[in-house]
Amino acid sequence: MDKYAQVLLRKGAQHRVENGHPWVYQSEVDYVEGDFEPGDIVDVYNFRHRFIGRGYINPRSQILVRILSREQEIINREFFRKRIAHAWQYRQRFLAEPEYCRLVFAEADFLPALIVDKFGGYLVIQTLALGIDRYKEEIVSILDEMFQPEGIYERNDVPVRELEGLPQQKGYLKGRFPTLIQVRENGLPFYADIDLGQKTGFFYDQRENRAAIKPLMQDATVLDCFCHTGSFSVHAAVYGAKEVTAVDISEQAIEVAKKNAALNQVSDKCEFMVGNAFDVLRSMSDEKRQFDVVILDPPAFTKSRHALEGAVRGYKEINLRGLKLTKSGGFLITCSCSYHMQRDLFSAVVQEAAHDAHRTIRQVEYRTQAKDHPILPASDETSYLKFLVLEVL
Amino acid sequence: MDKYAQVLLRKGAQHRVENGHPWVYQSEVDYVEGDFEPGDIVDVYNFRHRFIGRGYINPRSQILVRILSREQEIINREFFRKRIAHAWQYRQRFLAEPEYCRLVFAEADFLPALIVDKFGGYLVIQTLALGIDRYKEEIVSILDEMFQPEGIYERNDVPVRELEGLPQQKGYLKGRFPTLIQVRENGLPFYADIDLGQKTGFFYDQRENRAAIKPLMQDATVLDCFCHTGSFSVHAAVYGAKEVTAVDISEQAIEVAKKNAALNQVSDKCEFMVGNAFDVLRSMSDEKRQFDVVILDPPAFTKSRHALEGAVRGYKEINLRGLKLTKSGGFLITCSCSYHMQRDLFSAVVQEAAHDAHRTIRQVEYRTQAKDHPILPASDETSYLKFLVLEVL
Repeated sequence: MDKYAQVLLRKGAQHRVENGHPWVYQSEVDYVEGDFEPGDIVDVYNFRHRFIGRGYINPRSQILVRILSREQEIINREFFRKRIAHAWQYRQRFLAEPEYCRLVFAEADFLPALIVDKFGGYLVIQTLALGIDRYKEEIVSILDEMFQPEGIYERNDVPVRELEGLPQQKGYLKGRFPTLIQVRENGLPFYADIDLGQKTGFFYDQRENRAAIKPLMQDATVLDCFCHTGSFSVHAAVYGAKEVTAVDISEQAIEVAKKNAALNQVSDKCEFMVGNAFDVLRSMSDEKRQFDVVILDPPAFTKSRHALEGAVRGYKEINLRGLKLTKSGGFLITCSCSYHMQRDLFSAVVQEAAHDAHRTIRQVEYRTQAKDHPILPASDETSYLKFLVLEVL
Repeated sequence: MDKYAQVLLRKGAQHRVENGHPWVYQSEVDYVEGDFEPGDIVDVYNFRHRFIGRGYINPRSQILVRILSREQEIINREFFRKRIAHAWQYRQRFLAEPEYCRLVFAEADFLPALIVDKFGGYLVIQTLALGIDRYKEEIVSILDEMFQPEGIYERNDVPVRELEGLPQQKGYLKGRFPTLIQVRENGLPFYADIDLGQKTGFFYDQRENRAAIKPLMQDATVLDCFCHTGSFSVHAAVYGAKEVTAVDISEQAIEVAKKNAALNQVSDKCEFMVGNAFDVLRSMSDEKRQFDVVILDPPAFTKSRHALEGAVRGYKEINLRGLKLTKSGGFLITCSCSYHMQRDLFSAVVQEAAHDAHRTIRQVEYRTQAKDHPILPASDETSYLKFLVLEVL
């Protein structure tokens, strides 16, 4: 084996990476010694020529290197097999239904830019950087060997791949099968459309949070905003809600949501509508509608720090409206899945909304993402989901 | 009814209180209009003479007024009855075993400085400020009427009462009964010594966190530092741990811990020892002992902001040692119950310890205090417990 090219960090720029963060930015690099092709494995050293880690390089990306290992181990099939086996062992330990999980959560499973979701006998894969995309076939072959799935599907139709010089694409990697697949969450069946759905078709990251709404649901009237394919709504109805009103802007998502309500025999309790949740919140608020529980689970309003101000306004508005729509003694369930909207800021925005709505709020529970989306304390970016249950007085 | 004295806030000093915080500091007050005795009910106004809230006053305390209500309602038996009834309704909604709970969590239940813990048929009460102490008899009578407890005990033997000009005292308020009482936590029986134990004798605030350790325990060797009366240890053993080593500095606590292990028929798996956890961590670390799981649940190292630096050193040291004592692939469970050690600081200290110990950590779960210790977002002080489950690689 030839020696890998060596990426030398500038003096003073090494701390974050040495402390465990898996990304090396262009701006942190002093020079690269040796030849490499984009996507190749390289070694990262600090300015004292001490080895920090081994990863893959892409000069097209602001993130020049993503570190795969802190050891000088060979990056081959066995390396990926061990990593995936560890990820699977972890899910089996911590999940009640490991067959339905995020099997590989990229950086947080020490496999940067690789996502694998397990939908029972079907797997969906995303390879979001050049260096990991190179191993796609190897990874698919390992997954095939390890799980003998009925099918594997690629959901690489994401713009972020273009920053890496990769094409957007999706399709079958193993088998041919209908892409509306059944999954289970907290014991309940759901459809996930792995071809047309957002991201990979189902959001496992709220699994435990969906179970956490149970004590609020007996005979409750519920408003579920940004309901996507209706998982919160269906949980609410199954847990005893009297009436669930749910809204999402995606017609495709609402169609699946209706199927999910039918699958769980709660169609009579759920009303799903296609609409802009901002508008719906505003008009319901004008009509002085009142619910026992309001759920706000918006998509990320911001994917960058620059757009944060607008995002704060967005979160403030929906929370203000949501609070006004909540009966006294009722509950607001409010989420943010934007990393940039950090926890303290999110809490502060919600508290501000409460002040403006003249309501007193009390936190029953604060939760983060489900356990199959672990967090690397050395890498803030892996922590993104905020889930608050608030009593509204 | 005579008009209450009016506490006028200085211009600019009203925001925190108007925003929902229940404390008015001496330094925020412009003047007080009208007569009052220490402990009396007063009304708080902003500089524009707009009513903010009604509470009780004590000129001896830095916290001049603690707000009981945001309405101009009469503070009488019915007021306290409604507040306690709401608190009880909340516990019944959210707890699997509401008979064993913190029934009233002071400010967070809108009853500042009042603590009531429910140990099945026994109640333990603390009145930690003059204004609430005045209503002690009334509150005891309400509790008696509402719960018909077999006994009520007072644990007012706490130094903070002296800042309020109140004596330290403890004893029976209703009934005479042995003070070693049985409680239940996550379905398991425990003894709580409500006379000699720390605080009120049992820490309910970790209830759900203790249940959360279950997936880590099968055949595990466990080190439980600062084990108090052994609740984490007993949970660990019942959940399948092979061997639990537990240490606490209090002989009295260890005695109860041993009884708790016996009560749960896990004495053969648990070794309890009286000792300084810092010393034990150091010597075990020198002996290169290794455990599958290390639990660190120290008492608050700091009760003030001024002592924070020392506290940070303390947390850093025990986490560093704890990480070194954890096998590769094992887990560290680390807690802080000090409000001043805020979450981001605590995370940073643990991450620093991981860096120094040359270990990679991955967060499985972050949890806060149990649901019978709700949090007022308007009052940071009500949020104090951090509970982290970390995989240690």
